[in-house]
Amino acid sequence: MTISMVAKHAKWPAKADAIFAIAGKAQEAITKYGKENVTNSTLGALMDDDGKLIAFDSVFGVLKDMPNEEISAYAPIAGMPKYLEAVEETFFAGYKPDAHIRVVATPGGTGALKVAMWNYTEEGDEILTSDWYWSPYNTISEEAGRKISTFQLFSDEGNFNITDFKKRFKEILNKQDRLMAIINTPAQNPTGYSVSDDEWDEILAFVKEEAKNPDKKIILLVDTAYIDFAGAENEKRAFFTKFSNLPDNIFVMAAFSTSKGYTMYGLRLGALIGMSSNEEIADEFRVSSLHSGRANWSNGNRGAMLVVAEIFNDKELSEKYTVEKNEWKGILRRRAEAFVEASEEVGLELLPYRDGFFVSLPCDKPYEISDALIEKNIFMVPLGKGIRFAVCAVSEEKCRKAPKVIKEVMDRFK
Amino acid sequence: MTISMVAKHAKWPAKADAIFAIAGKAQEAITKYGKENVTNSTLGALMDDDGKLIAFDSVFGVLKDMPNEEISAYAPIAGMPKYLEAVEETFFAGYKPDAHIRVVATPGGTGALKVAMWNYTEEGDEILTSDWYWSPYNTISEEAGRKISTFQLFSDEGNFNITDFKKRFKEILNKQDRLMAIINTPAQNPTGYSVSDDEWDEILAFVKEEAKNPDKKIILLVDTAYIDFAGAENEKRAFFTKFSNLPDNIFVMAAFSTSKGYTMYGLRLGALIGMSSNEEIADEFRVSSLHSGRANWSNGNRGAMLVVAEIFNDKELSEKYTVEKNEWKGILRRRAEAFVEASEEVGLELLPYRDGFFVSLPCDKPYEISDALIEKNIFMVPLGKGIRFAVCAVSEEKCRKAPKVIKEVMDRFK
Repeated sequence: MTISMVAKHAKWPAKADAIFAIAGKAQEAITKYGKENVTNSTLGALMDDDGKLIAFDSVFGVLKDMPNEEISAYAPIAGMPKYLEAVEETFFAGYKPDAHIRVVATPGGTGALKVAMWNYTEEGDEILTSDWYWSPYNTISEEAGRKISTFQLFSDEGNFNITDFKKRFKEILNKQDRLMAIINTPAQNPTGYSVSDDEWDEILAFVKEEAKNPDKKIILLVDTAYIDFAGAENEKRAFFTKFSNLPDNIFVMAAFSTSKGYTMYGLRLGALIGMSSNEEIADEFRVSSLHSGRANWSNGNRGAMLVVAEIFNDKELSEKYTVEKNEWKGILRRRAEAFVEASEEVGLELLPYRDGFFVSLPCDKPYEISDALIEKNIFMVPLGKGIRFAVCAVSEEKCRKAPKVIKEVMDRFK
Repeated sequence: MTISMVAKHAKWPAKADAIFAIAGKAQEAITKYGKENVTNSTLGALMDDDGKLIAFDSVFGVLKDMPNEEISAYAPIAGMPKYLEAVEETFFAGYKPDAHIRVVATPGGTGALKVAMWNYTEEGDEILTSDWYWSPYNTISEEAGRKISTFQLFSDEGNFNITDFKKRFKEILNKQDRLMAIINTPAQNPTGYSVSDDEWDEILAFVKEEAKNPDKKIILLVDTAYIDFAGAENEKRAFFTKFSNLPDNIFVMAAFSTSKGYTMYGLRLGALIGMSSNEEIADEFRVSSLHSGRANWSNGNRGAMLVVAEIFNDKELSEKYTVEKNEWKGILRRRAEAFVEASEEVGLELLPYRDGFFVSLPCDKPYEISDALIEKNIFMVPLGKGIRFAVCAVSEEKCRKAPKVIKEVMDRFK
């Protein structure tokens, strides 16, 4: 046994990244069998029908036309003011709540989640999220000595399980004076579920009731990573107005990312958005977020910020971007519909898909089933309670064919 | 008194950024009096004689020629393998220690410092650095509940104060079983000091002696943010070979940044480099760093990584980049020499400058003196124990003229 040099809290087991490992195998299969014979539904990025990453011309054109000094210079810690303004306007898109709003730039959605969790929970706290969740929530929380606890996302009818949400929320709030709940909506990763407006009403009525105890602090963190590919227009943002006039001891944050909506995954740009009825609480959020920014990464990708700002401020460019995004939104929608319809035809059980990049299938032996599907040249990511199909990365034709094969393989494990 | 919603550890006073505030005043003065009459020595970035940011053509040409998908895609958490290879080769540049080396991509030098401090110190720990230090060390450490303690950087003769370093090191190591010491060299911010090879021998002889106690863990964190502008060739990297065959309980890390060397400040790319005689300790470093990466920002700027890799791998491009960098290195050197010579002529006391972007002047009333200098249209950043002149941002001519005015103003405060 060798000496360990890291501090105890920083000692982690070496773990290969499961998604990258399967994606690697998919690449091998493509080389061996040809891409037409392989369904690579592993990676969470929008691809064309040949599996090539989509990078919007409207976005990268702006970046490449920018003077070098504009990309080279440092941005302020908070972010470029015109980026922050563009985020605020495009994010709420007419559904701005009656609240004091502050926006701070972060490296991607992950940076936003990190700042929120670090600043708004205590060491040892339980953070509540759904049992189907994006696994880095766990990495972010365990790095900081917090712990993810879960409620059942779905009721038997396939709706948001408000009963279990309330039960688990109350249990934790009995033990802690502050509670953060993370809700990944719309277009949840990994299920594709979107909390409906009615369900939001139920959630907010409940937390308002809990907030009547002035000793309790309730933090809602809405992870909106996939919002730009949800709904037909902006209707999936309507729930934002419900964050109006909340009591002071309910603080709402949204984690925003440019990764999907601008296809700027590799540029690492997002934002954390804080909302409060109380201006001092909103200002406190900004100060804490800036301190975290300074202490973690200093400042953000300046060129990427200016791209977002320029698309927002230039009408022609904005239209070009919207046309390009909507084209892909349509393709994504058709792929997902093909997958869902074909699944219904063969009786393949899916979790209720509403929007976004992923569809998930519940099952008992996800790793075994994923392995067995690899034999059929279908590459899906195993999760704790099922397997995930990335419709964002697979052609409509393959989305239509895959469910039959998946059903046959899964039936062998019943 | 309003309710506070952030957790107690995340409550910070609102503080304006002093450097940006003064830089703003300098801009106002330029508008009012003309740029030829204003000396703006505030910002730590390389500027031409007109105060325009230098962005290397060789660097941004590569970025702009890159296919959009290469910029758009996610990089692996660790960083692009060819970036990591390029960093390892160019960073050590022939002075690689006999040690197991691991490199992990981070957002800038700040991200590297953050990961190192978080993973290699305990909450409540004192971290040792010199009394002249880059103030974000304090922000990074206080965010995580650590504390900066200092030793006197300079002896009376203007050398590295090994006596005080040893004294403070021993004091803290009596209280803690692990101790991290941060040494910002070569070309320290804010003094421009570079620890000499002989001084490194003294430092390492001392820590090896302390490491004979097997219960103690010693961590050296070398902040090399300005190394690309130090020395004539690579001789200021020679000390890296001294990190060969250290005992297992001395772990060395270097924080690398592309901000200055590639003028990619705003692209946020750096790396943390770990070195150990023990391969398991090096691997442990990599695992912990990856966990931190996943938990803080997920992954790094892919396009920026490929720029560094391409410059490293393409001989012609590499020469173009080296010519461009060396031209500016020469300009920087001449500016610094002009400032130092002119200071000697008028008897202005400077801290011992060796390399890099900054020269510092010790004084008792830095804020008052900075304010008085603003009246003379000279903009310098006040620090805890003096004021900083950024030769990186001021023409040789102004560097030659400024010391006389600074001396006159400072004498008024004696």
